[in-house]
Amino acid sequence: MSRALELAALGPVRGPNPQVGCVLLAPSSGDGVGRGAGTGRADDPRPRRVLGAGYHRGAGTPHAEAAALADARRRGANVRGATAVVTLEPCNHTGRTPPCAVALYDAGVAEVLHAVADPNPAATGGAAWLRGHGVRVEGGLRAPEGESLLRVWLTALRRGTPFVTLKTASSLDGYVAAADGSSRWITGAEARAHAHGIRAQVDAIVVGTGTVVADDPALTARERGVDGVVRLAEHQPLRVAVGRRDVPPTARLRGPGGELVQVRSHDVGEVLAALAGREVRHVLVEGGPVLSTAFLAADAVDELHAYVAPVLLGSGRRVVGDLGVRTVAAARRFRTVEVLRVGDDALTVSRWVR
Amino acid sequence: MSRALELAALGPVRGPNPQVGCVLLAPSSGDGVGRGAGTGRADDPRPRRVLGAGYHRGAGTPHAEAAALADARRRGANVRGATAVVTLEPCNHTGRTPPCAVALYDAGVAEVLHAVADPNPAATGGAAWLRGHGVRVEGGLRAPEGESLLRVWLTALRRGTPFVTLKTASSLDGYVAAADGSSRWITGAEARAHAHGIRAQVDAIVVGTGTVVADDPALTARERGVDGVVRLAEHQPLRVAVGRRDVPPTARLRGPGGELVQVRSHDVGEVLAALAGREVRHVLVEGGPVLSTAFLAADAVDELHAYVAPVLLGSGRRVVGDLGVRTVAAARRFRTVEVLRVGDDALTVSRWVR
Repeated sequence: MSRALELAALGPVRGPNPQVGCVLLAPSSGDGVGRGAGTGRADDPRPRRVLGAGYHRGAGTPHAEAAALADARRRGANVRGATAVVTLEPCNHTGRTPPCAVALYDAGVAEVLHAVADPNPAATGGAAWLRGHGVRVEGGLRAPEGESLLRVWLTALRRGTPFVTLKTASSLDGYVAAADGSSRWITGAEARAHAHGIRAQVDAIVVGTGTVVADDPALTARERGVDGVVRLAEHQPLRVAVGRRDVPPTARLRGPGGELVQVRSHDVGEVLAALAGREVRHVLVEGGPVLSTAFLAADAVDELHAYVAPVLLGSGRRVVGDLGVRTVAAARRFRTVEVLRVGDDALTVSRWVR
Repeated sequence: MSRALELAALGPVRGPNPQVGCVLLAPSSGDGVGRGAGTGRADDPRPRRVLGAGYHRGAGTPHAEAAALADARRRGANVRGATAVVTLEPCNHTGRTPPCAVALYDAGVAEVLHAVADPNPAATGGAAWLRGHGVRVEGGLRAPEGESLLRVWLTALRRGTPFVTLKTASSLDGYVAAADGSSRWITGAEARAHAHGIRAQVDAIVVGTGTVVADDPALTARERGVDGVVRLAEHQPLRVAVGRRDVPPTARLRGPGGELVQVRSHDVGEVLAALAGREVRHVLVEGGPVLSTAFLAADAVDELHAYVAPVLLGSGRRVVGDLGVRTVAAARRFRTVEVLRVGDDALTVSRWVR
């Protein structure tokens, strides 16, 4: 399972599909005598030969199980009686690829060990289907690591709405712009580059139309190549403008980058439902303050990336507006995952405590 | 000089006097033949015997030079013709102890190498006095490290007013209290304990009388002993209440801890002058917002310790009030020294960019 988890992590973190890894192990040989599917026990000390391995490289490409079966075929390995160790329960769903449960059964796999059950209503049932066809199935193996790897995707699938990361960039006293509206730059170039790296890991970036008009952001994911040149990243997230104001025809949002979508609503639930309908699993909310406040007030923020500059303004535009909080006990409190220095700024990554 | 700097750092960082270390070296022996004061060159590769060494342990105790001379006497070493390597120019001042320049000369020291010149108007002139009495003196040796060690003290002495550290503890959106005035607790227990450790390193803690009335702070330095019990630290900083309101008779500020001083003024210059008159070199300003704002508006903050909790309030009492800043270019911008995670909070230590 360690190897399967490592393989899974090689897949893309973004996109509608989860990161999954799969390793096919030869039947355990007992005392030198071949005898089928092995004990299937995680504490079985005997090393078993790897027949094939693979991982999912994103929507439209083979699932991890199919990749592992193909790998075994390429090696000329016989997978009859093998054990499939896979980080997520094999799917029972014909989508862009056929169901993995059927593929494993058809190949003669005798046993499936998985870490996490598939919460996807369209894909779940693989374990039950396999058991019904005489395959031994055991779930929950190294489940905490599997859950951790798939945190964003599992949250989105279980809840039915995208995982929401809110990014803020403010002065130490909580302002995103000075009294005259100037905001360039409060946080530094390193923080902005760091935030661009996050954009490349999400499916959609959301901003309010007020921000579109005021700041004219491009909302592209840029990255610095090995040649030192900054250019558009290969993956560009969906660009989502939320609000009733029109996106100006000359807006940079209409330039090179991800597809532009406008959601003409201020209702956070409606915005998230629209994005869920597009198979968006991970949304990055980049403000401005009105939109950030709406997401926080709706308890719709799963993770907070707060870049804070060593700057004091004393007045100006606040990073977050009124949340209806009257007393400290009612504050929106997050749990810190990590604190990083990024250039001259501090980045606190924290998660919502439900 | 490396050893002298190490020794200096063993002394107390607080108090009116600087951290100073001194090492007495035997005359260099040349080619095996004793010949007086050595070459005095920092790049002289020949190791020279240490005759004595010492450091300053705080006001009222011997200066580093006197401590090193005493150490040499205890060892029965003859310091005639020796080189004194000292982190700060020897003083020329009879205060609680006699002048070090005279003590070195009287002991027969032939050469003095120091890192930093003494800026103290009452003590400076030691190098000139020694030269006038035929002692070879060279300054500026490892000056950057010497300056770095004495940063706080040198700033206070050169300017004539204490070095000011401002401590803030706020939510990510810049509030120190919620709308109903509640403020316990925004930052966590670890951050509070960390801040207590800083108190033990300063000469005075300053708060506004508004904060005295509202929060009734004790303003004591507390530390956890090896037995795990938290108690008052040995050194207690002066407690300074700034403002015209009376400190209530039952205030914790009047309980166990450092001496209580009230400065009945809102003028930052007057407050600092009053503290300079008490030989205070390092002041910690702990708020509230009115006092913090006054210090920032007066450009009187040298270092900022900002504890920021992963909490959003959306409204309440702001950490800093209006600074007269209208545009980002005019913001109070500090340079980050370090970013630390302290419990669930982020601590940014930064310095004023003059």
